[in-house]
Amino acid sequence: MNRINIICLGVKDMAESIRFYRDGLGFVTDEARVSPPVVFFSSAGTKLELYPIDLLAQDINEDDPPPIAQGFAGITLAYNARSVSEVDSVVQQAILAGATVAKSPRKVFWGGYSGYFIDPNGYYWEVAYNPEWKFDETGMLPI
Amino acid sequence: MNRINIICLGVKDMAESIRFYRDGLGFVTDEARVSPPVVFFSSAGTKLELYPIDLLAQDINEDDPPPIAQGFAGITLAYNARSVSEVDSVVQQAILAGATVAKSPRKVFWGGYSGYFIDPNGYYWEVAYNPEWKFDETGMLPI
Repeated sequence: MNRINIICLGVKDMAESIRFYRDGLGFVTDEARVSPPVVFFSSAGTKLELYPIDLLAQDINEDDPPPIAQGFAGITLAYNARSVSEVDSVVQQAILAGATVAKSPRKVFWGGYSGYFIDPNGYYWEVAYNPEWKFDETGMLPI
Repeated sequence: MNRINIICLGVKDMAESIRFYRDGLGFVTDEARVSPPVVFFSSAGTKLELYPIDLLAQDINEDDPPPIAQGFAGITLAYNARSVSEVDSVVQQAILAGATVAKSPRKVFWGGYSGYFIDPNGYYWEVAYNPEWKFDETGMLPI
């Protein structure tokens, strides 16, 4: 086991979350199933999935679904940009799409440039430029 | 923006978490930085990162770090296996590594076979076999 195939975000409102990720940020999908309501985005590498958070908790345990925590989950997702200016423009795009800024983009101690936004469901995304990191042809970081 | 480059799990104990993911589950890494303490695993697709959860909260906002929620974060990670028996063996491997089972593997409504385990920090992983899904040469789901 040496890979993550899917990251599923449990969401409160599917339509709002599809709007945020597809129309706002640019994640691509040609499918949005109505029953059960689920979306898989066609991203390189690990797939991003949206699923109603109450159904996700039931999927884990139908009889005793885990209570859903409020606040910072302890997990962050990161988009790595190719430049400082791309970090700025992606964070701007996220704000226009309805995100909240948790950390405005700035130079950081590890030598790069980074900011954080919070999506409409409270999930944290880092947008970062790391001058030491190269990308493969799909935009992913190399193994 | 159509990809996730990194998923960072905020962890309570770096050594325990490295043991769980590297030695227990088989995630591969040749680096474990001591200062700051961080690990990136060499997985295809989205990179899995481990970082101390208090430092992660400070990285988001040094002056006002978000309080860390307890319980189900609302996010699940998924490993897609190539067969029913691989699901069973991966969940067994996770138990031996110190995971708790949230849902024992079983046939599920969407036509596949799936279980969930909880890692030592409370993060949920689904291990699933979906007969409709193919893999690319790196074990990722195709775009």
